[in-house]
Amino acid sequence: TLLLFEIGSMFNLMSTARTAKLIQNKSRVADVNSGFTLCETHGDIADRTLVRVQDLTPEKADQLIWLRARVHTSRAKGKQCFLVLRQQQFNVQALVAVGDRASKQMVKFAANITKESIVDVEALVRKVEQKIESCSQQDVELHIERIFVISQAEPRLPLQLEDAVRADGEGEEEGRATVNQDTRLDNRVIDLRTTTSQAIFRLQSGVCQLFRDTLTKKGFVEIQTPKIISAASEGGANVFTVSYFKTSAYLAQSPQLYKQMCICADFDKVFCVGPVFRAEDSNTHRHLTEFVGLDIEMAFNYHYHEVIDSITDTMVQIFKGLRDNFQTEIQTVNKQFPSEPFKFLEPTLRLEFTEAVAMLREAGVEMGDEDDLSTPNEKLLGRLVKEKYDTDFYVLDKYPLAVRPFYTMPDPSNPKYSNSYDMFMRGEEILSGAQRIHDAQLLTERALHHQIDLEKIKAYIDSFRYGAPPHGGGGIGLERVCMLYLGLHNVRQTSMFPRDPKRLTP
Amino acid sequence: TLLLFEIGSMFNLMSTARTAKLIQNKSRVADVNSGFTLCETHGDIADRTLVRVQDLTPEKADQLIWLRARVHTSRAKGKQCFLVLRQQQFNVQALVAVGDRASKQMVKFAANITKESIVDVEALVRKVEQKIESCSQQDVELHIERIFVISQAEPRLPLQLEDAVRADGEGEEEGRATVNQDTRLDNRVIDLRTTTSQAIFRLQSGVCQLFRDTLTKKGFVEIQTPKIISAASEGGANVFTVSYFKTSAYLAQSPQLYKQMCICADFDKVFCVGPVFRAEDSNTHRHLTEFVGLDIEMAFNYHYHEVIDSITDTMVQIFKGLRDNFQTEIQTVNKQFPSEPFKFLEPTLRLEFTEAVAMLREAGVEMGDEDDLSTPNEKLLGRLVKEKYDTDFYVLDKYPLAVRPFYTMPDPSNPKYSNSYDMFMRGEEILSGAQRIHDAQLLTERALHHQIDLEKIKAYIDSFRYGAPPHGGGGIGLERVCMLYLGLHNVRQTSMFPRDPKRLTP
Repeated sequence: TLLLFEIGSMFNLMSTARTAKLIQNKSRVADVNSGFTLCETHGDIADRTLVRVQDLTPEKADQLIWLRARVHTSRAKGKQCFLVLRQQQFNVQALVAVGDRASKQMVKFAANITKESIVDVEALVRKVEQKIESCSQQDVELHIERIFVISQAEPRLPLQLEDAVRADGEGEEEGRATVNQDTRLDNRVIDLRTTTSQAIFRLQSGVCQLFRDTLTKKGFVEIQTPKIISAASEGGANVFTVSYFKTSAYLAQSPQLYKQMCICADFDKVFCVGPVFRAEDSNTHRHLTEFVGLDIEMAFNYHYHEVIDSITDTMVQIFKGLRDNFQTEIQTVNKQFPSEPFKFLEPTLRLEFTEAVAMLREAGVEMGDEDDLSTPNEKLLGRLVKEKYDTDFYVLDKYPLAVRPFYTMPDPSNPKYSNSYDMFMRGEEILSGAQRIHDAQLLTERALHHQIDLEKIKAYIDSFRYGAPPHGGGGIGLERVCMLYLGLHNVRQTSMFPRDPKRLTP
Repeated sequence: TLLLFEIGSMFNLMSTARTAKLIQNKSRVADVNSGFTLCETHGDIADRTLVRVQDLTPEKADQLIWLRARVHTSRAKGKQCFLVLRQQQFNVQALVAVGDRASKQMVKFAANITKESIVDVEALVRKVEQKIESCSQQDVELHIERIFVISQAEPRLPLQLEDAVRADGEGEEEGRATVNQDTRLDNRVIDLRTTTSQAIFRLQSGVCQLFRDTLTKKGFVEIQTPKIISAASEGGANVFTVSYFKTSAYLAQSPQLYKQMCICADFDKVFCVGPVFRAEDSNTHRHLTEFVGLDIEMAFNYHYHEVIDSITDTMVQIFKGLRDNFQTEIQTVNKQFPSEPFKFLEPTLRLEFTEAVAMLREAGVEMGDEDDLSTPNEKLLGRLVKEKYDTDFYVLDKYPLAVRPFYTMPDPSNPKYSNSYDMFMRGEEILSGAQRIHDAQLLTERALHHQIDLEKIKAYIDSFRYGAPPHGGGGIGLERVCMLYLGLHNVRQTSMFPRDPKRLTP
């Protein structure tokens, strides 16, 4: 089934095709002369410009163009074969018809090309009288004169792209297939070709870019932190172990300790984007064992709310950038997974933990002052906040000290609470952060209180012995931000190759 | 030794200071009244604007300003105390003198502040008659009226910043100390404060930004690839093992397989920036067990040189961006580590492997046609190329097939060679890349030839069964690019927290 794999030099694209044809005595390459005379020369290919599908508009009418695309669908009908040719989210109708420009063999050849194969076609662009509703390029179609198979797909696809983009409800109503998540993920290379997946991951790329550009403008420096570490920072729970030559090491659960060291090393404001590892056996819609952390850490002058303001403004810039520059992607995803547009306020709403407890109690929830929020209570709180303030994004400040890690700065005015915060999108946590203790002595006391082995965090504590500015920060889960911004319901939809306790492939 | 750690709210900065003072019956906070009357209120701090050291110019003369900085050096002299206050690479001279504005106790207090402590000062900016050559701000000095210790450094520093920036030669000549690499790395938080380190890692941040911005402009999409993988892609050598719940997994040696899957999934052109893990027991100046990969993969039309051209152009944009926007950083590093400016050509020089072998043989090297280049021969070749072509950057194309990984596309016109390439800076490899085999059948054959267990790479091979465009790419080592661009001699200088077989901390 292999044909043009040796696209290795200008000269070889066609000579290999010819060889393959001769060997197999069966043409995979067809032109008006039925594919048996491949008279192309080096110059022919070198001069060739491949047009993009999205550029096929009526302005190109009556031009003879070259195009490389996938065969999205193919339908033979008497002496004609209709193809839909696809590039990413764009597609165009194409026609091979017996006549001046194509032989009977060529129509048959075209009809036999398997779906998802990649082809090169030479074709005349024609305006159409009636809009082609099923294609992104509605005003033109292609009349194919030559067609070459560049890469042939196996005839049986593990999933159909039409099924993979069907909205759940739509599928049920019309008795049509949808594709379940494991099938999608097992065949991710095909699932990622759908318009929905293309839109999700282009938007995700946008989130990273907006995050970095906003912070760079604010004077932050990007840092790279190690993922293999010698000691588990928070007592060893939920950490993956790595064999490291003759010893053992761990995978970093967050870059936090390293971000903080950079602050102690005078970088002032830093960010990093990178993998974060959690060995939690949580099989939920929002947990992954490996995800991408967007991390921020900064020195502040007089109040840790300077940190909260920097982070919330960064989030707002991301939301605005997505709204303004990724509307096509948002609408594409919405077609399959409808959701309300994401709402946010400027400045960002900041609630104190005690206010949240009061709101929840008013709604009938029983909880103690220093209890952490359960996931259902977070969700409920999200709904209450949305009703009252009309925002899908807010900060919850001043968590009880007891539910936060040892390095969290206590609230100096009330030791039951702490200078720490979470941020929420549509009622789910996307960031956890705090002012960190920057004094070695207090840090030692708090670590002992949490029964952490001081020997294991010696390097961390020592970082604060030679002058450390007050600082704070937080870590954002990229996949959660994308999921919640788009109103999706599973973080595996926004992770290209998700990892969870049960999935390590592909 | 702990004082103002509870900078938790506007109200608490000063009240805590007072409390600490009362408790310890010893002032760490001094003003003109000797530090015993801290009459500041909330408003005082809220209205306070902290000036940056780099903004202390003669235009600010006779203004009373607030500043937060480290005590870089301190020298008491009779009724005066001279301090040098530092922020990152900038510093300014400051003076506390007994008189109208400071008491005797205050001078004593200032003289006792340990080096590297962080202080807040209120001071009058004064023009100086004679330039202060030893400071970055040469035209002004500060006359301190109040000084507060924000974070106190321990009196004994594990290394001195002056020693850490001294050029090797200079140290020897004058009998002064320099700092060896392990001491630097063991105390990285202090070592990173030097002007040299600050410059290196700001430049590194710039390399990442230039890499991404250039590729984004070219239409590339950023992707995130998993680091925990289920099978070692290249046969299991040099790979770290991870305990993964009840099974084992590995750390990815490169994102290559995932980049390729994205190409098969129609992303067309992708890049990623992330950690790469190599369990090689190599203790050299250029090997790390974890480094940052700048990875590129793209579909091409008719020739893999389209890929080479995209990568070399990206490198050239990085070199130009560094030259044009990071001249201060380059010169700062050069002061300690002198080197020739980095030279490159446009378009980038591309040599074929056979040409390189001929050049080496002419220089007296004995090697077979299909031998890989040894590290000394790479270095020698770099010198020969520099002599002949006056460039520190070039591409070596068409490596012998035998020395490349199984997924490398053979050269269709000569099966002894392959469509693969390395790129070199100052004679050292910074990128390895190739056209990849995009046909499942050929890939299977090549994997069998390399005696790779097909079962372990099934998901990889299957990626190519449903139509795959011809494509190629490469992976760049970030730390090597920074090291070689700056003419440094050890990759640990350009890794913030390097990992090698003998180092896992900090």
